[in-house]
Amino acid sequence: MAVELELDKQHKKVLVKEPASVTSMVTGHYGYMKKGTVELFPEEALYLMDIRNAKCHDSALNQCSFNEVAGLFECKKQMARYFTYKDWRDRGLIARQVSEICEKYGRNAVKKYPAGSFLMDKFAMQARFFPDDLWSIIDDEAVGKELYDRYWFGQFGTYKAEQRGKLSKLDAYEALFLMRHCNLHLSNSNEHELIKYAKRQHKDFLHLYEVYEDWRLRGFVLKTGFKFGTHFRIYFPGASPSRSNDEWIHSKHVIHVFPRDSKMLISEWSRAIRVAHSVKKTFILAIPGEKKKKKIEKKDPFATTLDFLLYHRHKGGIENPKDGKPKYLMFSLSEEEYIGGEELAEAIEDCKRIGLELLLAISDRETSVTYYAIKRLELPGSKYEYYEIEWEQP
Amino acid sequence: MAVELELDKQHKKVLVKEPASVTSMVTGHYGYMKKGTVELFPEEALYLMDIRNAKCHDSALNQCSFNEVAGLFECKKQMARYFTYKDWRDRGLIARQVSEICEKYGRNAVKKYPAGSFLMDKFAMQARFFPDDLWSIIDDEAVGKELYDRYWFGQFGTYKAEQRGKLSKLDAYEALFLMRHCNLHLSNSNEHELIKYAKRQHKDFLHLYEVYEDWRLRGFVLKTGFKFGTHFRIYFPGASPSRSNDEWIHSKHVIHVFPRDSKMLISEWSRAIRVAHSVKKTFILAIPGEKKKKKIEKKDPFATTLDFLLYHRHKGGIENPKDGKPKYLMFSLSEEEYIGGEELAEAIEDCKRIGLELLLAISDRETSVTYYAIKRLELPGSKYEYYEIEWEQP
Repeated sequence: MAVELELDKQHKKVLVKEPASVTSMVTGHYGYMKKGTVELFPEEALYLMDIRNAKCHDSALNQCSFNEVAGLFECKKQMARYFTYKDWRDRGLIARQVSEICEKYGRNAVKKYPAGSFLMDKFAMQARFFPDDLWSIIDDEAVGKELYDRYWFGQFGTYKAEQRGKLSKLDAYEALFLMRHCNLHLSNSNEHELIKYAKRQHKDFLHLYEVYEDWRLRGFVLKTGFKFGTHFRIYFPGASPSRSNDEWIHSKHVIHVFPRDSKMLISEWSRAIRVAHSVKKTFILAIPGEKKKKKIEKKDPFATTLDFLLYHRHKGGIENPKDGKPKYLMFSLSEEEYIGGEELAEAIEDCKRIGLELLLAISDRETSVTYYAIKRLELPGSKYEYYEIEWEQP
Repeated sequence: MAVELELDKQHKKVLVKEPASVTSMVTGHYGYMKKGTVELFPEEALYLMDIRNAKCHDSALNQCSFNEVAGLFECKKQMARYFTYKDWRDRGLIARQVSEICEKYGRNAVKKYPAGSFLMDKFAMQARFFPDDLWSIIDDEAVGKELYDRYWFGQFGTYKAEQRGKLSKLDAYEALFLMRHCNLHLSNSNEHELIKYAKRQHKDFLHLYEVYEDWRLRGFVLKTGFKFGTHFRIYFPGASPSRSNDEWIHSKHVIHVFPRDSKMLISEWSRAIRVAHSVKKTFILAIPGEKKKKKIEKKDPFATTLDFLLYHRHKGGIENPKDGKPKYLMFSLSEEEYIGGEELAEAIEDCKRIGLELLLAISDRETSVTYYAIKRLELPGSKYEYYEIEWEQP
């Protein structure tokens, strides 16, 4: 039998009073029970009307349509919230309101990366800087070759054919790093100018450089991620450009830098993750820059602007609020929305405080939902935080 | 024996005079012969020094390094030009200067797409508009279902499970199209407001809509291209959302819209093509908006700002300037450069006038070059031009 919903327009509430419907709500983990009546949240009411054939009437017993109920509860990104809630429920999983968070769940893991350190012999190096396309070229063959073979800076010779040619080509990140840490001198320019030209091309250049430097100083090797749709690809400490047994070493991780003060269309952001995924790389997100000090309200340390509390699966069954803990906090988004670095950083901060993992749920224009889980990783010695982003099919 | 180059600093020329070297230049298709002396272009001289071990000296017989010669010929995107020239040569292929173009080559093909037309019965439709996330929802089940089944507007029910749910969700392109062409009415908003909110989210909304409308009016079906990293995916005229033999119809084409007045980082643009390529879709580029009237210099109808004239392969051999025609014009770019819609449109216009195909050559920060060929396609009846972009390995 279809569930009966009652819309109290005056108090903006959706109630379930009819006994059989109440039971069905309780077993289905919908709403909150209060003195024999279940009060539903808007997404729950909309879902029951859309999918479970629930009928809704107002106090005067007039039938109410989906759009009328939605209209009464108008809010920011209402449909993105609804479609992502719906998708979670359609998968047979339980989603609840974030207002019921009342403990630290301790379910957010931190992955620890290995780290080495950067050590280099003293060099005297000189390069010519090409301001319009940001390369610096060392034409002293011996210096360029050693720099490449021992430390994998620049591209010596030809890509995948080092023996062909005698120049070493440094990109702007490598050149700046070598100027700051290893005594590189530009014959026709200087650090200040390199930064000026690089910022003209790429306004976030210094943010990208911060990330480059952070990993390089810990022994990782970073090269362009162009082929994989990201800013850098990463090799773990100890990597070298030379082939072992004629096999190329393949990077397994790529880094995308998302500065706090920048904004990006969700669809563009997702594109970067898709390319990395299609080439089987782990996608690492870097949010460089200083954290904004955000006051945490003392009265509710579990307050969050995130959208839903998600229960997942366990041992062939599903988690539920009665005998289990939630796993994720859902951030409901839609394809044509902008997301800011700061906003994402705050969402991650909320998850850390509450002890859950962040799950981005992106509804495309056809309401098909794509999920990305965001997991913290620790780079020992770094003052920044990094995140692995994984495509999930819950 | 190594080639001998002579750098005439005063006249900014690189010359080859030694007889054996002259012969080697002529057979290798380097430079221009003038009274027994070959004059080289800067990229040729740099290439010979870098790869062919050429020695360069000035008039006083001082040895000159790569960086000294490069410094003398400083110009816009000099290294992007050099690395893409080098890559073409490294493949054993011939590249020449665009200054030698003197005819219309007639080697640019136009692909013709089939086209139908858009026909629809009269409907009376009403939807609620959700301004913050741009969806419009029809909650009249019969109307929404017919609109979906017969014309594939909106997403009825659930994505890949139409029988689940009874709402029809229209995206902003579909809603605007139905308002303009099929009598859709928004219960809580209007066309002007929808455009206002959509432009707030996506400043190029109306350009994207122009493209959407252009293809829709010619019988194609356009849905979101989110999963494939582009603005739209396309089904050819006659496509329907229903499965035949329980098989999903798969789109084979995606469209990316690049407005004339917008600029995009090459790396971001390339990312979009990569996603499409990884899912085996044909990538279509749309450059909507009015062409800027550009005066073509009367004295040289073959003038172009493009970078090199490229000879390719034929029947197991390579094309060369002696007994064949060039195939492409190369547009030399680098990963961290911006490209504008207008600039790309002009490059395409040059190629059309000269009768060659456009080849984008993008050098990444490691000087590895990726090629994209741009081929015109004709959508019968459309006033716009569209292009297929193909990843090439020359």
